Amino acid sequence: MVSARADAATRPLRLGMVGGGEGAFIGAVHRMAARLDGQFELVAGALSSTPEKALRSAAALGLDPARSYPDFMAMARREARLKEGIEAVAIVTPNHQHVPAALAFLKAGIAVICDKPLANSLAEARRLVRAADAAGSLVCVTYNYSGYPMVRQARAMVADGLLGDLRVVQVEYPQDWLTEPLEATGQKQADWRTDPARAGAGGCIGDIGTHAFQLAEFVSGLSVQQVAADLSSCVAGRRVDDNAHILLRFAGGARGMLWASQVAPGNENGLKLRVYGSKGGLEWRQEHPNQLLWSPFGQPPQVLARGGPGLSPAATRVTRIPSGHPEGYLEAFATLYSEVARAIRARAAGEVCPPEVLFPTLHDGWRGMAFIDAAVRSAAANARWVTLASSPSAAS
Amino acid sequence: MVSARADAATRPLRLGMVGGGEGAFIGAVHRMAARLDGQFELVAGALSSTPEKALRSAAALGLDPARSYPDFMAMARREARLKEGIEAVAIVTPNHQHVPAALAFLKAGIAVICDKPLANSLAEARRLVRAADAAGSLVCVTYNYSGYPMVRQARAMVADGLLGDLRVVQVEYPQDWLTEPLEATGQKQADWRTDPARAGAGGCIGDIGTHAFQLAEFVSGLSVQQVAADLSSCVAGRRVDDNAHILLRFAGGARGMLWASQVAPGNENGLKLRVYGSKGGLEWRQEHPNQLLWSPFGQPPQVLARGGPGLSPAATRVTRIPSGHPEGYLEAFATLYSEVARAIRARAAGEVCPPEVLFPTLHDGWRGMAFIDAAVRSAAANARWVTLASSPSAAS
Amino acid sequence: MVSARADAATRPLRLGMVGGGEGAFIGAVHRMAARLDGQFELVAGALSSTPEKALRSAAALGLDPARSYPDFMAMARREARLKEGIEAVAIVTPNHQHVPAALAFLKAGIAVICDKPLANSLAEARRLVRAADAAGSLVCVTYNYSGYPMVRQARAMVADGLLGDLRVVQVEYPQDWLTEPLEATGQKQADWRTDPARAGAGGCIGDIGTHAFQLAEFVSGLSVQQVAADLSSCVAGRRVDDNAHILLRFAGGARGMLWASQVAPGNENGLKLRVYGSKGGLEWRQEHPNQLLWSPFGQPPQVLARGGPGLSPAATRVTRIPSGHPEGYLEAFATLYSEVARAIRARAAGEVCPPEVLFPTLHDGWRGMAFIDAAVRSAAANARWVTLASSPSAAS
Amino acid sequence: MVSARADAATRPLRLGMVGGGEGAFIGAVHRMAARLDGQFELVAGALSSTPEKALRSAAALGLDPARSYPDFMAMARREARLKEGIEAVAIVTPNHQHVPAALAFLKAGIAVICDKPLANSLAEARRLVRAADAAGSLVCVTYNYSGYPMVRQARAMVADGLLGDLRVVQVEYPQDWLTEPLEATGQKQADWRTDPARAGAGGCIGDIGTHAFQLAEFVSGLSVQQVAADLSSCVAGRRVDDNAHILLRFAGGARGMLWASQVAPGNENGLKLRVYGSKGGLEWRQEHPNQLLWSPFGQPPQVLARGGPGLSPAATRVTRIPSGHPEGYLEAFATLYSEVARAIRARAAGEVCPPEVLFPTLHDGWRGMAFIDAAVRSAAANARWVTLASSPSAAS
Repeated sequence: MVSARADAATRPLRLGMVGGGEGAFIGAVHRMAARLDGQFELVAGALSSTPEKALRSAAALGLDPARSYPDFMAMARREARLKEGIEAVAIVTPNHQHVPAALAFLKAGIAVICDKPLANSLAEARRLVRAADAAGSLVCVTYNYSGYPMVRQARAMVADGLLGDLRVVQVEYPQDWLTEPLEATGQKQADWRTDPARAGAGGCIGDIGTHAFQLAEFVSGLSVQQVAADLSSCVAGRRVDDNAHILLRFAGGARGMLWASQVAPGNENGLKLRVYGSKGGLEWRQEHPNQLLWSPFGQPPQVLARGGPGLSPAATRVTRIPSGHPEGYLEAFATLYSEVARAIRARAAGEVCPPEVLFPTLHDGWRGMAFIDAAVRSAAANARWVTLASSPSAAS
Repeated sequence: MVSARADAATRPLRLGMVGGGEGAFIGAVHRMAARLDGQFELVAGALSSTPEKALRSAAALGLDPARSYPDFMAMARREARLKEGIEAVAIVTPNHQHVPAALAFLKAGIAVICDKPLANSLAEARRLVRAADAAGSLVCVTYNYSGYPMVRQARAMVADGLLGDLRVVQVEYPQDWLTEPLEATGQKQADWRTDPARAGAGGCIGDIGTHAFQLAEFVSGLSVQQVAADLSSCVAGRRVDDNAHILLRFAGGARGMLWASQVAPGNENGLKLRVYGSKGGLEWRQEHPNQLLWSPFGQPPQVLARGGPGLSPAATRVTRIPSGHPEGYLEAFATLYSEVARAIRARAAGEVCPPEVLFPTLHDGWRGMAFIDAAVRSAAANARWVTLASSPSAAS
Repeated sequence: MVSARADAATRPLRLGMVGGGEGAFIGAVHRMAARLDGQFELVAGALSSTPEKALRSAAALGLDPARSYPDFMAMARREARLKEGIEAVAIVTPNHQHVPAALAFLKAGIAVICDKPLANSLAEARRLVRAADAAGSLVCVTYNYSGYPMVRQARAMVADGLLGDLRVVQVEYPQDWLTEPLEATGQKQADWRTDPARAGAGGCIGDIGTHAFQLAEFVSGLSVQQVAADLSSCVAGRRVDDNAHILLRFAGGARGMLWASQVAPGNENGLKLRVYGSKGGLEWRQEHPNQLLWSPFGQPPQVLARGGPGLSPAATRVTRIPSGHPEGYLEAFATLYSEVARAIRARAAGEVCPPEVLFPTLHDGWRGMAFIDAAVRSAAANARWVTLASSPSAAS
Repeated sequence: MVSARADAATRPLRLGMVGGGEGAFIGAVHRMAARLDGQFELVAGALSSTPEKALRSAAALGLDPARSYPDFMAMARREARLKEGIEAVAIVTPNHQHVPAALAFLKAGIAVICDKPLANSLAEARRLVRAADAAGSLVCVTYNYSGYPMVRQARAMVADGLLGDLRVVQVEYPQDWLTEPLEATGQKQADWRTDPARAGAGGCIGDIGTHAFQLAEFVSGLSVQQVAADLSSCVAGRRVDDNAHILLRFAGGARGMLWASQVAPGNENGLKLRVYGSKGGLEWRQEHPNQLLWSPFGQPPQVLARGGPGLSPAATRVTRIPSGHPEGYLEAFATLYSEVARAIRARAAGEVCPPEVLFPTLHDGWRGMAFIDAAVRSAAANARWVTLASSPSAAS
């Protein structure tokens, strides 16, 4: 077997967290991801908007009480002044707080790792992008599925031309956890994710549709130009979409379909991508992420395996352990943290970050918002084609 | 293990065939299907429009030379007058000959087993439906995937309400055999299937999209009302679509997606159906047809197996051999033949055919044509919603 | 897609059947297999040892009452004298009647297609082999799994040296239908298969273990020399083994394991073979028989598909329909019938049967008996190594 | 979705490491496992027997140079005297150093986390067990596959009687990385793992066979009493076994088979366990560890999923993230570390460790050695049955 990947370079970076207190799902995920490769140490937090909960959560995590803050503004202000203040912050709140929090830390010169989707609205996202561009900020939006080695393998194979000209992209992301009106029970995750005030206009498309969208663009290297979206709320009384059927047209002529659902019984977290070109096809499933099916046209399909023979450097450099020893969701998430750590260290050293370091940036965050916006507008117009908003960066 | 299904009841029915001479694919399939359960014996044929080929093919099949006909008109006329003339005819020509041939045999009072799609155009299909209605004819259109036991199991479970109210239907049918311009090489199957004059306006949607469509309606018990279709010809110079992305809206409110492709490398014959309701979901894959994944919401998914525990009578009555002994494509096809045989025998005996006997009829044939027609019109109008034509039977 | 395989050459051969009356499992399988390719027509039978049942069964199958016989002796005698008597007989009785019936037809010069295992004892098998050798008889023993195209592909790849020197063979055949004492309920299949008088000394190893054994030898091209067997009867009161754990040593040094069980809940008919050599490995599963996993060492595994790219002539010549259109158990079984038909026609024409025609012969039947005998003796001696009896043909 | 598992309780425990310097595989795994849940902090090490390498490795890991030791004796001595010395040590050297190192730390009152197999010989293992028993030591032997949630689910289901009386256990662990004489190239892992002086008498059975053995005993709750082993060295010149075929007999009457191989091309790390009882069967595959197939006899098989419906507390308490978000090898390994942390904290607090806390102990380590010893002796005696040595603890 090959050696496991080298770990922490000397000193972990200092990390703060906004949100992620007791009962949160994604906050704990970010913490495990930050710890796995030893690149970050959590030292500060504004873990909850409820003061006692914030303190309790900080204590449970062993944070210095002096660095448990009542809100992100206080945290950004003080940490920026500390000699050994945080070097990065993870924003893991409900969506409506992403942009305000990100702006606060960007102004303080602190790198931002923000959960997806980037914002609650396209306007809000535009504001953040412009501010970040102006400040030259380092931002990662945690479209975590792009951290999987075999996703990077797929991207590299497309980029290397192995598939020929791309023709068809099929991406789907079915879940079943909102099959019944879970939000009516007060369940925390269901509650805010189906509330347009906190989740934004997109329900299912915002929560998971953007993941599917980002994965499709990330692997194909193509940009979606237009969408025609048929959004449904299958559960009576639900205020946001819980099922999305979307046709895609990519720049360059490829076509695609995107299905996202949270009401498809039997599906846990069924993100799946298939890409087809004139020379071959690829298929990847998130629930069995260590394999990638590669079908060169006219030859038998091959099962490429993480850590196995025939892989590209893009995949092997983010592989920790040998093939057959499955890496999972947390490892892929951790890879984004390690990539960001490399970028932060390079910037601190005045160096250019090596080109192979790869994580979803503000650009991906913006694209996700443009996708949600276009899909919602298309659905409101009976699934007519709607063009995605172009980047404010490019426009400025 | 359970006993294998009882076979032929005494005397095989006399079968004729139009098309299916040397080099044909589907003709040989029909013959094997007709033979498997011993319900039919091939005794006459107009196997090719090329006279010598027709004779050679008839000889190879051991037909009486006197019953090898130069064309279907001659065959229909003479067989109708024979004391022991054919009781059914299988029409396995390219699409443009389906309706003319079917009309000839319907007029002669001979049961028709016609390959799909039913016709070359909606107008032609309408003519056939009206003629058949008037004649009280027995017609089967070989949407053969509805012969699989686990497809019938799925249909029965939906009908029994196990899935609750249906919300989402996902059906796909990818292949890869037209990834390159195979028609340019003169390959027989590719040649006529990409020729609008012989295949009709639909390429991929006519050849396989209608299978997917029929399967979705057959299992869900719902009717598609509207489609929004994005059709492509990915291969330069191809005269028909080879990839179809279609949004579906069903009567009653369920939504769906249909993907059909003949340019998706790595896909052999990947028909797959998923149906989701308020209480559970089902998933079936044609390439592994003996399993059906059943996911009652909130419980672990179950792998239902042909011949295994927990199956409905609808599945077991078309099961020949025990679970774990895979039945395949030919068995499903043969089931349609055996079902038609039961219907013919019942009619001959002046009995009502038992309600459990099930095969795709002219109605399914018409629906398939209405689907192709609507999809082609939608695609021509940039994927706007188009309503499927209503049945000429109902209208008359 | 490729064309389906050419079917019946003019005239079907005349077939008789011994056993296989009402309620039988394997008799119906043989009949479907005999019909599928149109190479045989069932015209005579001694379908049951119970006279009324024999008549009823014959009537249901549409046999001429004059050719429904009370016993196989009568059938062999009369059919041999008929001008158009049977050209082959299928013997599908319980095991203890295989040899007496086979001897009767061999003497009459009629080709024999006999179900497995060949006999009830090694001594009985020896008698048959010697008689057949003397008569130059044509005998097929229906180790039907050797009819699968991908099994033949595997055999061809091993023979072509693609795997290098073989080192390890793993074969298993778990079922679950005897998990409970089904024989106590009077179920017909369980009744005779657990009765040493009718099934022979081996229970599970005779019924399915010999299939696994034959498959291992057929694909590897190697002969098992020694076995060390641990046989169990897991169900109280059962008179034969229902679970078998066996170590194998092959001529030439390869080693293997064989597991057969009828008490492994969740297993339907889980025959699976894996073969490993110095250059690569193969894996095949009967329940998904259209795929073969080929792993050349140091390269990504490939999924070879029946009808797909990269297959050997040995596989394609027994393939009926294109890849993705699954062929199953009956098709594999039918292939043996078609191979035997070729052999019979060649012999009738005074020609040498082409070398690519392949079916399990008396040699395979003998090997299976030698395996059962050695396993039972090994188990009785606490799993010590026992050498398989050598062939009476070679010895004579 | 459910919340992710709560993480670090306030203060991480101080961990030291013996072995695991540059180029090591398992050392890096232990470090990631130790970090994931935030329960341990690596503060000291004797990372290599080569002094410069030890220093370089320590620096790369950010260790205080004062706590980078030249050898484990120096480390044990000094850390025992430090006020804030290590509370646990991970021993990740080649096998021949496990026992000497473990003895040193046990004497110093430091908890030991030792890689498997426990020792280089049964005698050495016996010495360690007796010393540990005398000292009341806390020892974990990292049979890491017992950390998987679905393995614990399987164990709980067996213990709860859902499978009825166990009859058959099938366990296999094929790999392919030693298909060619990799040790001849100087590859570090292959080098020591095929050297009896450093790996012990067992090659493949020591390296991976013991994992399979432990998993079988852990899940079944049964003890193997006897083995009959056929061990091979398939690669010319190899000094240890690289393929093992072993029959198992369990206390209480169940029987089993164990296959371990490092020369089976196409197998990465194919540990797989199947357990069958009178009421049902279970199947688990390490390479897709988040699923467990549960087949209650006479009902459709169910796919149990980590984090999904119907799971036991034994599985959910070691689950970090929701179903469909795959956890992998490192997570299972980390669970052992977190379990040990609970035990250490309980002991430090003078409390009894809660009974649900579960990790492989010295008992499992001993059992593994008794298995290797018995298998090697059996193989030397032509696979005769050999009884496993009984525990020195029980004996003393």
